[in-house]
Amino acid sequence: MWTHKVLKDPVHDEVLVEDPWIWRLINTAAVQRLRRIHQLGTSYLTFHGAEHSRFTHSLGAYETMRRVLRHLEQECGWPRDERDKKLALAAALLHDVGHGPFSHTFESVYDVHHEQWTRRILLEDEEIRGLLDEVDSNFADDLVALLQKQSDSVIQQLITSQLDVDRMDYLLRDALHTGVSYGRFELARLVRSLTLADGQVVLKANAIHTVEQYILARYFMYTQVYLHPVTIGSDVLVGQILRRAGELWNQGAGLEMPEPLAALFGESQGVSVADYLEMDESTLLYAFRRWTKGPDPVLSDLSRRFLNRKLFAAVERVEPDSGEWAALRTAARALGFHPDYYVCGRSSAIAAYVYRGEGIPILKADGTVSELSRESRIVRSLIPDSEYRLFLPKEMLEGDGPVVERVRSLVYGRAK
Amino acid sequence: MWTHKVLKDPVHDEVLVEDPWIWRLINTAAVQRLRRIHQLGTSYLTFHGAEHSRFTHSLGAYETMRRVLRHLEQECGWPRDERDKKLALAAALLHDVGHGPFSHTFESVYDVHHEQWTRRILLEDEEIRGLLDEVDSNFADDLVALLQKQSDSVIQQLITSQLDVDRMDYLLRDALHTGVSYGRFELARLVRSLTLADGQVVLKANAIHTVEQYILARYFMYTQVYLHPVTIGSDVLVGQILRRAGELWNQGAGLEMPEPLAALFGESQGVSVADYLEMDESTLLYAFRRWTKGPDPVLSDLSRRFLNRKLFAAVERVEPDSGEWAALRTAARALGFHPDYYVCGRSSAIAAYVYRGEGIPILKADGTVSELSRESRIVRSLIPDSEYRLFLPKEMLEGDGPVVERVRSLVYGRAK
Amino acid sequence: MWTHKVLKDPVHDEVLVEDPWIWRLINTAAVQRLRRIHQLGTSYLTFHGAEHSRFTHSLGAYETMRRVLRHLEQECGWPRDERDKKLALAAALLHDVGHGPFSHTFESVYDVHHEQWTRRILLEDEEIRGLLDEVDSNFADDLVALLQKQSDSVIQQLITSQLDVDRMDYLLRDALHTGVSYGRFELARLVRSLTLADGQVVLKANAIHTVEQYILARYFMYTQVYLHPVTIGSDVLVGQILRRAGELWNQGAGLEMPEPLAALFGESQGVSVADYLEMDESTLLYAFRRWTKGPDPVLSDLSRRFLNRKLFAAVERVEPDSGEWAALRTAARALGFHPDYYVCGRSSAIAAYVYRGEGIPILKADGTVSELSRESRIVRSLIPDSEYRLFLPKEMLEGDGPVVERVRSLVYGRAK
Amino acid sequence: MWTHKVLKDPVHDEVLVEDPWIWRLINTAAVQRLRRIHQLGTSYLTFHGAEHSRFTHSLGAYETMRRVLRHLEQECGWPRDERDKKLALAAALLHDVGHGPFSHTFESVYDVHHEQWTRRILLEDEEIRGLLDEVDSNFADDLVALLQKQSDSVIQQLITSQLDVDRMDYLLRDALHTGVSYGRFELARLVRSLTLADGQVVLKANAIHTVEQYILARYFMYTQVYLHPVTIGSDVLVGQILRRAGELWNQGAGLEMPEPLAALFGESQGVSVADYLEMDESTLLYAFRRWTKGPDPVLSDLSRRFLNRKLFAAVERVEPDSGEWAALRTAARALGFHPDYYVCGRSSAIAAYVYRGEGIPILKADGTVSELSRESRIVRSLIPDSEYRLFLPKEMLEGDGPVVERVRSLVYGRAK
Repeated sequence: MWTHKVLKDPVHDEVLVEDPWIWRLINTAAVQRLRRIHQLGTSYLTFHGAEHSRFTHSLGAYETMRRVLRHLEQECGWPRDERDKKLALAAALLHDVGHGPFSHTFESVYDVHHEQWTRRILLEDEEIRGLLDEVDSNFADDLVALLQKQSDSVIQQLITSQLDVDRMDYLLRDALHTGVSYGRFELARLVRSLTLADGQVVLKANAIHTVEQYILARYFMYTQVYLHPVTIGSDVLVGQILRRAGELWNQGAGLEMPEPLAALFGESQGVSVADYLEMDESTLLYAFRRWTKGPDPVLSDLSRRFLNRKLFAAVERVEPDSGEWAALRTAARALGFHPDYYVCGRSSAIAAYVYRGEGIPILKADGTVSELSRESRIVRSLIPDSEYRLFLPKEMLEGDGPVVERVRSLVYGRAK
Repeated sequence: MWTHKVLKDPVHDEVLVEDPWIWRLINTAAVQRLRRIHQLGTSYLTFHGAEHSRFTHSLGAYETMRRVLRHLEQECGWPRDERDKKLALAAALLHDVGHGPFSHTFESVYDVHHEQWTRRILLEDEEIRGLLDEVDSNFADDLVALLQKQSDSVIQQLITSQLDVDRMDYLLRDALHTGVSYGRFELARLVRSLTLADGQVVLKANAIHTVEQYILARYFMYTQVYLHPVTIGSDVLVGQILRRAGELWNQGAGLEMPEPLAALFGESQGVSVADYLEMDESTLLYAFRRWTKGPDPVLSDLSRRFLNRKLFAAVERVEPDSGEWAALRTAARALGFHPDYYVCGRSSAIAAYVYRGEGIPILKADGTVSELSRESRIVRSLIPDSEYRLFLPKEMLEGDGPVVERVRSLVYGRAK
Repeated sequence: MWTHKVLKDPVHDEVLVEDPWIWRLINTAAVQRLRRIHQLGTSYLTFHGAEHSRFTHSLGAYETMRRVLRHLEQECGWPRDERDKKLALAAALLHDVGHGPFSHTFESVYDVHHEQWTRRILLEDEEIRGLLDEVDSNFADDLVALLQKQSDSVIQQLITSQLDVDRMDYLLRDALHTGVSYGRFELARLVRSLTLADGQVVLKANAIHTVEQYILARYFMYTQVYLHPVTIGSDVLVGQILRRAGELWNQGAGLEMPEPLAALFGESQGVSVADYLEMDESTLLYAFRRWTKGPDPVLSDLSRRFLNRKLFAAVERVEPDSGEWAALRTAARALGFHPDYYVCGRSSAIAAYVYRGEGIPILKADGTVSELSRESRIVRSLIPDSEYRLFLPKEMLEGDGPVVERVRSLVYGRAK
Repeated sequence: MWTHKVLKDPVHDEVLVEDPWIWRLINTAAVQRLRRIHQLGTSYLTFHGAEHSRFTHSLGAYETMRRVLRHLEQECGWPRDERDKKLALAAALLHDVGHGPFSHTFESVYDVHHEQWTRRILLEDEEIRGLLDEVDSNFADDLVALLQKQSDSVIQQLITSQLDVDRMDYLLRDALHTGVSYGRFELARLVRSLTLADGQVVLKANAIHTVEQYILARYFMYTQVYLHPVTIGSDVLVGQILRRAGELWNQGAGLEMPEPLAALFGESQGVSVADYLEMDESTLLYAFRRWTKGPDPVLSDLSRRFLNRKLFAAVERVEPDSGEWAALRTAARALGFHPDYYVCGRSSAIAAYVYRGEGIPILKADGTVSELSRESRIVRSLIPDSEYRLFLPKEMLEGDGPVVERVRSLVYGRAK
């Protein structure tokens, strides 16, 4: 007889699965695959503890949602409906199901969007779709609408807004694994301060400092962890590997291409859901390792750098102008580095809080609803910002010789 | 200019690298490869948080050794010698370097011993050997002797004994990631209670309860985490996959065999260090996924079960006698399961403390050295024990029909 | 409108008060007085962090009971009855209400038993009794019966047995404040493993290692914290102060005796509940400080030693025989110390688990109930033990001169 | 033989005392007295866990200083001098030694300043002065200069500035005991980022987000803990008790006045150091309890309210104008409350970061020194703010009748 499952969790102590249907969702191939995709992409090359997967985060988002629903049910009598509960819990559990390996990098290099893949998996994967259809025939569509922000349900806010269970879990989880205290905030009080008003989820004004703490946790995690230059440099490297491999493949250059990557490097529109679900980080890492042995010196060098953590150097500075770019590329060539792959720049945006339409609604003592940034000077001070960095092999910056000195003077001349 | 590196760590807060030579050792391909091997093998299928790698554990063992050495140096003036320090730190960092993917299972199926591979990697891998030779030409041999328990150095105790930095780190780290409190003990006090006497590392008697706590942490981690039936069942499954693949390969059955696995499935004596170092869990997971598509129904089913977590059921009981084995195998066949792969038993030994020659030496107030089990009733109560479990597909135990009922009566008849 | 109160707690994160009647009980003078009595008596002189009071522990025991009841209600449908819930919660909150300042020492010197005072307070204190009578006229008597182990209710086990909410809270709380990890155990799992069978609270057998961890937490807290020689020595000192003050008072020696202490030093039978409730540690500390100024050199020296932490030395050894006692007393006198007050011995019992009638019942898989020590070798190994120590001023052991040397040889001759 | 003392600490794990002179300082009566003064005054009436004393905080400040010095010595070769080390460590240990019971309230009611008392204790207390003079005859004066901000030593910054060991310890310690996460920050990294430049302690610019986290920890502790209305209300109550007792005493009203309080209520200039050191919270609590029995109804009621936690209600609003004050006082009188003691207002200032002269110096990459608020938008957003609150008995706000209604309309009419 099924009663419930208790999973030990390093963040929430226990994840409680009360509904056997959720347990079956967790045990689908599509969800289990998330165990093979790191939650923080290449961050583990910077913070060695960041080895946790999107699977553990998905369980954590589910558990946070479960606690939020339990609170709202006691506080406001919502959700009364078993279907709404299932929608909310499934949305939390499945919100990342479309992510691929080194997801954000992959998306930026190829024309793949994880939101689109989430949609296709929910609608087309037989195992998942079967479970969703068990609820009713509109359930899958409603779930897709929620995850794509096309629903008018209050659940949408809980799963994708500035105060959603996704962020609540990942801040705490990423902080724990990286070993920093920056992501900590008072989860229990934040959850307890949620309520419904005007048909939306709002936060009671007496918890204003608790939500400030949560927003600042995000700010600190961005500045100290997520946008760490070593991580961005590792992402850049993965991007260059994928670009080079794609070009060689499309040139028919006899590249070894482990299945089912070929489909992706061709035209991803044609990729089946089954093929996509075979893609995880073990697939890419296997490919990278094979490519270290291949004939193309650029691809094999880049792959080796990633696998063995010989990362690019990062220099914080203003974006080079066209003259600087040209000079850097010339220098790279002179030192034996293909400029298209070995000289790169990247701008990273810090957006701890965003003000447009989507702010966090605050329920004031007088019953009116305001927006967080209007109520908090600290939150207002967090204007979006960005950092520009140049990435290139350490060999281009270290050692003697006129070219290396030229690179150094070009690069550090306008370093921040 | 090199000063030192500080790595944030979820267990020790900070890992401090003061010696640039250690930093270069950390950044070798052989050590970086450990990022792609889980510390606890398949345990993550039981405790979802157990996703940490042998790499992070190796850094933790290094850091623990660093603290032990700092203490002993202050307390006893040893090690004075920079070479001894390097030996001890390198031993801690490299003690797991020979591990392969799903290591213990691999070793039991094929004739591979990670200790042998550690030896070969230290002696034969160019990058590692080069760094070791920088110290002096005997350094690599001395390190191998230490890690193979063939040294008479006091360092050997610190790296491989019942009170070594390996265990000190893994108990704390595994407890953190699985989310349990069982592995906690007072590390700082334990380290501070170490001293040298009679040419060996001994523990001062006034820390007897602290070392009891440490031994019990190990006992609890064994009973609650390491030997969890779901984990043992997952290991059994990996073992069956490897056995089946090996048999098919040696029959020339046209199995897809991703490089460089072929070498291993042939005769592992012939495997080069370079090939071995290409083996990590991404290689095996890639292979498993390919095999789900292969023509052999046993291999493809077993692979799918592992990847998608459709694990075997575990039944704790006494070992079946030959009549029971025969009956179980007949039933398996009747239900369409190949008995060689779908009916398995496994005995797991709980050895929290071992008494022979190798006990933990305790320095008593009167200056004599005793052995822990003589001083502690609790430790004496921890006699080695073992648990026998039967593993088979849930389909053989659930549902209706006379065969399934027969299996249930066979299996649970003598369940514990 | 009353909803509920949430109190932040360093151990349980939050203490939740859902019943306004409980909130009123918390806010009685008798319960608030517990804020002025240390939970661990004089332990703060050994572990400086042990400054927490019986009040915070009482809230923690209440919260633990609340969680146990919530679990049992879901699991077994008990307690259904609001009155049973109130009984259990009030018992947890009030179980320590009769404790006086430096409770155990006081009790051993004077004829005071905190259990008797608990009974009197519940029955005679107007404020408390009024609240209890609000439930019904038998409630106070039922509560007294529970706390004095004279009830046959299942609640009695939850409040006073080897697996009660009192211990569950104090192990975790004392560990946190002293800064040690010894008292940690898996509270949530322990609570979740409780059930009802045979009309009693039992623990499910699959949690056997969890309850072992809990019993060992107690063992370690006893050996490492509760019976620390410095703490026992401080208790001994308080005892000597109280004895000396009592003798002087009864001799009519003109001792300053802050109110309402006089009653206690006379005949405590005559003490009213109102007078008793005025007694807390601030009363005693105030008296001690006044006595440092008084004419009796013994009382003023002992008081000064306690307030300024000039504690006695502790020597672990076998109990002196009568010849040794005589010799020690002679030496004390020669060095100017009154032997009745400056030479003392104390035996402390370590009783981590007790086997008689009252063991922890374990519900086995076959439905029978066993007793923990029969199921666990480790628990069986924890036989009651005791340690004997001699306490005397450091001045009697340190320095030169034939008398001090004589003391040293007497004392350390048979030291353990 | 002295080696060192290790004290277990809930915040820093271990407090290490390496210098026997420090150990003797810790064991002076003046320092031990701090065990009897709460670190957070009356906060324990709001956050029940806040029962820790100024003694444990003083040890924590000492330990933090020890770590800062160890870092600076490695990083900058300062302090080389044993005397400088002793100065810094003693300053950290003794910085609070002049505090009295419910310190800030006492100071505001009577003309007592803890800084003055710190000075007098260091210079006049025989035991302390003796130990200071052991170093050399200028040591006591130098220490006083440091603690009174009249030194030009770099040590002064470490003990009394916006980035001092006092704050570093209390934020972490107060957060632990109250059970909130608001006070957490990355202590190890903050310490490691300190260096010396321009003859002052500066923070390296790459730790800018770490110092932001520390400043915000302070902001959150102020808004969520230190200025909690229940705490402020308790302080107000203590203040009213002290004022009333003083008035009665000076009127010669036959008030029972436990020694040595009389001196303080007379003219505190005449109080001796010995008398002052007898004052701790047990003295005041003893007095409060006696006063509950005294003839003055105001003093006995206020004392009872404090001891039994029948606190005033707090209403956040703008300061009443003179008409409102008069009306409130009239209503109080009508309800039987002496308006001088039962109707009070208090403004509390939140000053997380202060910009004038004393900001935190930041060492930028180009070698120049800037000031934190110039470098951080978040810190700039923390302008000093204040909250006004009205405190009065709940009986004046609750229940029926025209006067109570009048009070409610007066009070809430301009509530925030």
